[in-house]
Amino acid sequence: MKYFVPRRVLPWRRSFSHSSSRRVIKSLSELPARINPKYTETRQNDLLCLQWPSPPRNVLLTKKNNTPEITESLIEYAQHIHSTYPSMNLMLEPHAAEEVHSKLDFPVYTTSTPTLHDAPTPTILSDKTDLVSTLGGDGTVLHASSLFAHTPCVPPILSFGMGTLGFLGEWKFKEYKRAFREVYMSGAHDAYASIDQKDQSEITDSEDANTTPTYASIRGKSMGAARPARILLRNRLRISVFSPSGDRLNSSDPAAGDTYALNEVIVHRGSSPHLKIIDVFVGGRFLTEAVADGMIISSPTGSTAYSLSSGGSIVHPLVSSLLLTPICPRSLSFRPLVLPANTPITLRLSEKNRGREVEVSVDGVRISKGVGVGMEVRVLGEDIRDRRSGEWCGGVPSIVRGVVGMEEKEEDHWVGGLNALLKFNYPFGEEA
Amino acid sequence: MKYFVPRRVLPWRRSFSHSSSRRVIKSLSELPARINPKYTETRQNDLLCLQWPSPPRNVLLTKKNNTPEITESLIEYAQHIHSTYPSMNLMLEPHAAEEVHSKLDFPVYTTSTPTLHDAPTPTILSDKTDLVSTLGGDGTVLHASSLFAHTPCVPPILSFGMGTLGFLGEWKFKEYKRAFREVYMSGAHDAYASIDQKDQSEITDSEDANTTPTYASIRGKSMGAARPARILLRNRLRISVFSPSGDRLNSSDPAAGDTYALNEVIVHRGSSPHLKIIDVFVGGRFLTEAVADGMIISSPTGSTAYSLSSGGSIVHPLVSSLLLTPICPRSLSFRPLVLPANTPITLRLSEKNRGREVEVSVDGVRISKGVGVGMEVRVLGEDIRDRRSGEWCGGVPSIVRGVVGMEEKEEDHWVGGLNALLKFNYPFGEEA
Amino acid sequence: MKYFVPRRVLPWRRSFSHSSSRRVIKSLSELPARINPKYTETRQNDLLCLQWPSPPRNVLLTKKNNTPEITESLIEYAQHIHSTYPSMNLMLEPHAAEEVHSKLDFPVYTTSTPTLHDAPTPTILSDKTDLVSTLGGDGTVLHASSLFAHTPCVPPILSFGMGTLGFLGEWKFKEYKRAFREVYMSGAHDAYASIDQKDQSEITDSEDANTTPTYASIRGKSMGAARPARILLRNRLRISVFSPSGDRLNSSDPAAGDTYALNEVIVHRGSSPHLKIIDVFVGGRFLTEAVADGMIISSPTGSTAYSLSSGGSIVHPLVSSLLLTPICPRSLSFRPLVLPANTPITLRLSEKNRGREVEVSVDGVRISKGVGVGMEVRVLGEDIRDRRSGEWCGGVPSIVRGVVGMEEKEEDHWVGGLNALLKFNYPFGEEA
Amino acid sequence: MKYFVPRRVLPWRRSFSHSSSRRVIKSLSELPARINPKYTETRQNDLLCLQWPSPPRNVLLTKKNNTPEITESLIEYAQHIHSTYPSMNLMLEPHAAEEVHSKLDFPVYTTSTPTLHDAPTPTILSDKTDLVSTLGGDGTVLHASSLFAHTPCVPPILSFGMGTLGFLGEWKFKEYKRAFREVYMSGAHDAYASIDQKDQSEITDSEDANTTPTYASIRGKSMGAARPARILLRNRLRISVFSPSGDRLNSSDPAAGDTYALNEVIVHRGSSPHLKIIDVFVGGRFLTEAVADGMIISSPTGSTAYSLSSGGSIVHPLVSSLLLTPICPRSLSFRPLVLPANTPITLRLSEKNRGREVEVSVDGVRISKGVGVGMEVRVLGEDIRDRRSGEWCGGVPSIVRGVVGMEEKEEDHWVGGLNALLKFNYPFGEEA
Ligand SMILES: NC(=O)C1=CN([C@@H]2O[C@H](COP(=O)(O)OP(=O)(O)OC[C@H]3O[C@@H](n4cnc5c(N)ncnc54)[C@H](O)[C@@H]3O)[C@@H](O)[C@H]2O)C=CC1
Ligand SMILES: NC(=O)C1=CN([C@@H]2O[C@H](COP(=O)(O)OP(=O)(O)OC[C@H]3O[C@@H](n4cnc5c(N)ncnc54)[C@H](O)[C@@H]3O)[C@@H](O)[C@H]2O)C=CC1
Ligand SMILES: NC(=O)C1=CN([C@@H]2O[C@H](COP(=O)(O)OP(=O)(O)OC[C@H]3O[C@@H](n4cnc5c(N)ncnc54)[C@H](O)[C@@H]3O)[C@@H](O)[C@H]2O)C=CC1
Ligand SMILES: NC(=O)C1=CN([C@@H]2O[C@H](COP(=O)(O)OP(=O)(O)OC[C@H]3O[C@@H](n4cnc5c(N)ncnc54)[C@H](O)[C@@H]3O)[C@@H](O)[C@H]2O)C=CC1
Repeated sequence: MKYFVPRRVLPWRRSFSHSSSRRVIKSLSELPARINPKYTETRQNDLLCLQWPSPPRNVLLTKKNNTPEITESLIEYAQHIHSTYPSMNLMLEPHAAEEVHSKLDFPVYTTSTPTLHDAPTPTILSDKTDLVSTLGGDGTVLHASSLFAHTPCVPPILSFGMGTLGFLGEWKFKEYKRAFREVYMSGAHDAYASIDQKDQSEITDSEDANTTPTYASIRGKSMGAARPARILLRNRLRISVFSPSGDRLNSSDPAAGDTYALNEVIVHRGSSPHLKIIDVFVGGRFLTEAVADGMIISSPTGSTAYSLSSGGSIVHPLVSSLLLTPICPRSLSFRPLVLPANTPITLRLSEKNRGREVEVSVDGVRISKGVGVGMEVRVLGEDIRDRRSGEWCGGVPSIVRGVVGMEEKEEDHWVGGLNALLKFNYPFGEEA
Repeated sequence: MKYFVPRRVLPWRRSFSHSSSRRVIKSLSELPARINPKYTETRQNDLLCLQWPSPPRNVLLTKKNNTPEITESLIEYAQHIHSTYPSMNLMLEPHAAEEVHSKLDFPVYTTSTPTLHDAPTPTILSDKTDLVSTLGGDGTVLHASSLFAHTPCVPPILSFGMGTLGFLGEWKFKEYKRAFREVYMSGAHDAYASIDQKDQSEITDSEDANTTPTYASIRGKSMGAARPARILLRNRLRISVFSPSGDRLNSSDPAAGDTYALNEVIVHRGSSPHLKIIDVFVGGRFLTEAVADGMIISSPTGSTAYSLSSGGSIVHPLVSSLLLTPICPRSLSFRPLVLPANTPITLRLSEKNRGREVEVSVDGVRISKGVGVGMEVRVLGEDIRDRRSGEWCGGVPSIVRGVVGMEEKEEDHWVGGLNALLKFNYPFGEEA
Repeated sequence: MKYFVPRRVLPWRRSFSHSSSRRVIKSLSELPARINPKYTETRQNDLLCLQWPSPPRNVLLTKKNNTPEITESLIEYAQHIHSTYPSMNLMLEPHAAEEVHSKLDFPVYTTSTPTLHDAPTPTILSDKTDLVSTLGGDGTVLHASSLFAHTPCVPPILSFGMGTLGFLGEWKFKEYKRAFREVYMSGAHDAYASIDQKDQSEITDSEDANTTPTYASIRGKSMGAARPARILLRNRLRISVFSPSGDRLNSSDPAAGDTYALNEVIVHRGSSPHLKIIDVFVGGRFLTEAVADGMIISSPTGSTAYSLSSGGSIVHPLVSSLLLTPICPRSLSFRPLVLPANTPITLRLSEKNRGREVEVSVDGVRISKGVGVGMEVRVLGEDIRDRRSGEWCGGVPSIVRGVVGMEEKEEDHWVGGLNALLKFNYPFGEEA
Repeated sequence: MKYFVPRRVLPWRRSFSHSSSRRVIKSLSELPARINPKYTETRQNDLLCLQWPSPPRNVLLTKKNNTPEITESLIEYAQHIHSTYPSMNLMLEPHAAEEVHSKLDFPVYTTSTPTLHDAPTPTILSDKTDLVSTLGGDGTVLHASSLFAHTPCVPPILSFGMGTLGFLGEWKFKEYKRAFREVYMSGAHDAYASIDQKDQSEITDSEDANTTPTYASIRGKSMGAARPARILLRNRLRISVFSPSGDRLNSSDPAAGDTYALNEVIVHRGSSPHLKIIDVFVGGRFLTEAVADGMIISSPTGSTAYSLSSGGSIVHPLVSSLLLTPICPRSLSFRPLVLPANTPITLRLSEKNRGREVEVSVDGVRISKGVGVGMEVRVLGEDIRDRRSGEWCGGVPSIVRGVVGMEEKEEDHWVGGLNALLKFNYPFGEEA
């Protein structure tokens, strides 16, 4: 039996009893190398088209924790992927792998550390993941993105809102079949490519995980026309945090380098009841001394998150910019700023703070140690286009939901989100 | 020697070596009982006039800690009071008493607990204090006010801004002689009353601390005309905090009852990186579910403090009201509210928060334990006028600075503060 | 026939052909004098109770113009009042009187001028009106209130929102029977008082308009228990506008004196494309020079109108205060202010404006002439309680809607309006 | 005499008496054709360098009207240019030409229409102007920019703030010699190029206005090293306004095409006291119905103008974007938006407005006729870089002030403006 090869069983899976040889957890290292898609411009020039050179093989599924309904949905989704796209390998985070593998009759892949998040930078993830798919809210998308927080090149993310739609989770779960198919086929040259799930089922087992299927090989399967998936390439922030003594604090691994954030980095008084004094430098020059609860440096994507709550403007994700938004500033005249994405911004905890610590958080996750007076947060926007080649890379490639049969109105995702989710300019009044 | 009566030396003053018999610390209990002033309406009907039935005898001086210049000023001020108004008794907080008593050649009075603040409700303070005078910033005024946080009747406060003027600290320190004299004499019926420091010095020592001097007895002293001191009676908030199990949390002493705040009470996510969900009830009815960093319930006085930083309007301290201001609400439509002072407001930490704690603080001081899901903060404005008698009582009677020789413009304190301190509507532009 | 007395037909009713002798328009001067109700405090002490010394006789109905459905409703409402409360006299504005009198088989009363609004101060209105009832939106309530803009004592207003509920129009039209009855009976001492419409119908015609019915006389009619109507006494602004040369501009009648406003007075650049420079004085002292589109001085009632759109806080109508809110100020630090109701505020069009005119409007109606550089708008809050007698008078007595069977929750009108109409803190999100 | 050629005297100069043959006004048509500079990127990549292929010859000077001091400064400035750079031709607006030509002993050039502004599109201006220099405030820069409102390619603008510095007027007038020299020499390849005014004076007269001087020909003149002038290329808005019947309203010349704005286009209720209802379309899709005083569509440059007063964020001029900012919206949830510069935005006056007119203004100048219900304002950001060639063109090339001897800090113009002019985050407090 191919799946139950003892050496493949991860050492930390001690307590695991596998009644069926298929319900196993395997190591990511066994997976074939990642396939990098291309992104091509559309005539409208704001969304990009996803183009796989060959069909994706490794999909990482992440989900919100502690929510049984979502775990159920994950299982349903995984089974659909396995049965319809038998050449796909399913990757899960360790916690989820343990939780669901026994309910799946095919192997799942995971890392050998208990949680990816605590792990030393999981470069293996970025070496293997072709595609990410999330089930949860915005927090789950932020978490998925954080798994690639030290990687310049994030795989495309297909996100499903569960229960409540979020700003980042574009799709409704009930659309998962159409959505996955659209992504899987995206960019296949043969518009008549199709998959026949029945015919293929017997050859699945004999397929090696390392085989590269081609769109040609799946020709004839009843997939219908392949419309390319639309990608919104969300700029990230490139963040480094330094302790007063110059140690890098933004990662537990000192060699990890800068951290990429999807929403924002925040410096905040946290549990200290007192105002904080933060020196703000823009483009290397002193801009101002902020006396406030804290400061936010946000991406346009993050403009609808914490920055919005603090009075920031809403910035479209395609405006290449950084937002500087104060949190409860002790000033009548500290208006939020929108700066060019390539402007370096530094926040420095002023000596005037008399040694009190602050809270620094990236996308809602706190960096908790060594953050004292003299500490610096340095931020730069991310270049998502190679200057020389003109190729699109970087950012978080978010697969945007199109409306079937409304091709011409397909760009509604952001405007739709403003209206439906944020209740933007929600009308006054009530019927008598 | 009158001052060195061994039994008067407090037991906890072990480490204290007194070279001079006068440089002693005595107990508050030795002081005569408090004299309660009256407040009378002026024709303008917004500020009140202070009227002592007989000259005040016990003055509590508080100061900002860890600031040597301020300690110097305190000594200068104390010496002036003692030499000019020999019948006055000087009260200090224990920490300050220890710090300065050896530099004063007369006794100071303090409580027998290391810091007043940690002490079981210091009712003795409110039983003895005729007048409070603070040296420091707004924080020092807030602290002085907190010493009377369980007392309906706060003595008048004469506050000096040191270094930087604050919104609550009305006077400049260099005006201390005029200011103290104005307060001391306020309401004396004999406009020709005067004090001659030299003549009186010999009788001072023989005066018992418990003697009640009369304005008549100080007649003839060259004090000039007695202009009454003007009082801004600042409404407070009456706060109670209850744990989910119904225990009162707003004071370490369970019997202490409600706490009065000068600025505000705040519920805040504190060190938790996540949004908090707070149910807001107004007048006993559910108003809204706030999803936010936190909520502020502020007095009009506090409208220029934290509430201002969070986007609240500036409310004149004489508008009888409560402000409800959200901190970074996750909503586009949560505008600050100004409610009648007699409206009960309750903030309740919703069950949806899944057990995470929050920070509750009163005037910038944190209540740190037992604050979980189900916790309630209940607030009511303070009545500063007795309904039946029409007498003014309650509130924090703040002695407002008049401008010499500008009688007709004397109400400038608030407008002046807006312009000079808050840089309200500060004009644009610069000379070329 | 009593009603068809030719001399009573107003001269300006030339084109009117009356098939029925009853469908006539009569002059207000024929009506009995006004009955002034008392307002008594409730135990909750924020709303008042309406108490008629004897049943009201003269009701003024106003309606939104050019809306056929509302005209239909007016007719239905008038017929109900006439048939159920035969002793009531119906007053209409001239325009409405002409529009509907032919559809009513009883006389209506109106003034002899084409529109009340253009008329010299219609003191006759305040001499005759016991009660006002409006059918329309907030604009109709504002208009009704403006009919009493020079009267210290406004009759109670019962307002029905039509089509869309407004903030000032409390009641739904379908509730008109219950609402009118509640108001009519309010304060009747005999809780068993009742009216039997049938029994009374024959005596109606013989009743003279000048007879004072008593609650006793309508005893036995099946009206059920008389719950007193609840009154929200809305403070107004007392406004005077002076031209640079000192002429009063706030009224076309120079003798009219101050104008009372329900919402606000506004100074605005109007059609001038340039910023205006306005000097603001508070309590007689210079506060600031506003460089802005304009300035608003608003009552708490107006805090949910223009002031809200300009960034002002929402102030409960029972907070005795004035709001000073800038419109598009050219300043980062011009925060809205809330001032005590008894603070005089003056807006003065600065000499720096170089002669350009501005727009001054009161409750949305423009004062159009003579408003140039040097012009002043002076505002004072209205006292709604007599200092000596303690009697409630002044303000706009608005009849607040109670919820049947929910006595304990009856104060929901304002909180309800915030949530239902203003979508206050409207929750984010959408179901997936 | 070369300058006094009668046929060159413009017919409309009837009343002009020239005592000296040189004090004449000539027609723009006599000037040599415009020289177009290149803009090259600097290593910092946000400001550009100005590079003339050969020295500029035609400079247009504009000034604020009705300000005698500024007229004096204009004369001084013109004389300096003429004497130091004798090959330069001075262009003035007709009004200014008439006002000052008699005080200058050399000819000035102007158009043959009374004011450029009212003129049919002055393409002659864009055909002849190498460089613009303004003396006045931001209004003068806006006016200068409006002279090129129908030209894709605006000459570089050197602006001097007079009296009060503005946000757009970068330089102080006392720096005019250094500033003009820096611009004149900008990009000259010969770093030792110099001008000796004395030596050259005799040949000046014989130089024809049409001769092209070269930097080589001015070699040896003591000009010192040529540091290139730094250019901030400010994006404009491309605006078209259509009447309900589809007529173009944004220009008096129907053939003029779109209008470019530097700050913003505004739709506003103007003198109507009522709210306006405006449908907003973004990217061709309906975004929202705005019920408000008006709407602003602003460039990043305009983000510190009207949009700021209306609550918009401050956007750096190099962030390629459009701002959508409501003016006093009747909504709690209408937050300003920042959209990609290439997003088409349309404002449409809704049918619900019942025929009332609105005010439409571009950079503070009103379009006054034909603007009724159904009217549309369509806006697009301007492309300032040619997609194919990568050349910079379009926008308003604003010459930014460098600080002498502080090369490394030279980018301070925007940050400096925020702090010095807008009093951004101006610190609280005052010394005691
Ligand atoms: N006062 C506030 O508004 C606060 C906001 N946050 C935000 O929460 C994020 C972390 O998310 P969770 O871990 O789920 O924390 P959480 O459980 O506190 O929820 C954050 C909320 O923000 C929403 N959100 C997240 N990213 C968004 C985006 N880009 N646009 C619109 N809405 C967005 C989520 O849907 C959720 O409603 C942080 O990156 C920060 O932006 C965190 C703390 C306070
Ligand atoms: N983001 C913010 O604006 C924050 C404000 N605070 C305020 O600080 C107060 C506690 O003061 P400290 O212990 O000195 O803390 P702190 O050292 O953090 O300073 C608070 C600042 O607020 C000023 N302030 C205090 N009360 C004021 C008032 N009524 N009007 C105008 N300014 C006022 C003080 O002058 C000082 O500048 C709290 O009651 C709260 O209002 C506390 C935390 C954050
Ligand atoms: N940008 C804005 O918000 C503007 C507001 N207004 C307001 O309109 C009022 C005049 O009303 P209309 O003649 O009907 O003009 P309108 O037809 O322009 O409508 C004004 C709107 O304000 C609402 N409104 C009026 N008073 C209110 C109150 N006290 N609380 C909450 N909403 C209220 C009305 O329901 C209506 O939706 C003025 O007193 C002024 O407050 C007038 C012009 C502009
Ligand atoms: N409430 C407001 O803030 C209003 C602003 N405006 C602005 O005025 C401009 C027209 O200017 P003027 O004819 O001089 O009118 P103006 O005489 O009314 O003055 C406008 C003010 O805006 C400043 N300004 C103009 N452009 C600016 C920019 N890009 N950044 C920062 N400040 C700027 C000027 O220095 C001046 O202080 C319009 O484009 C509009 O932006 C016009 C009307 C009202």
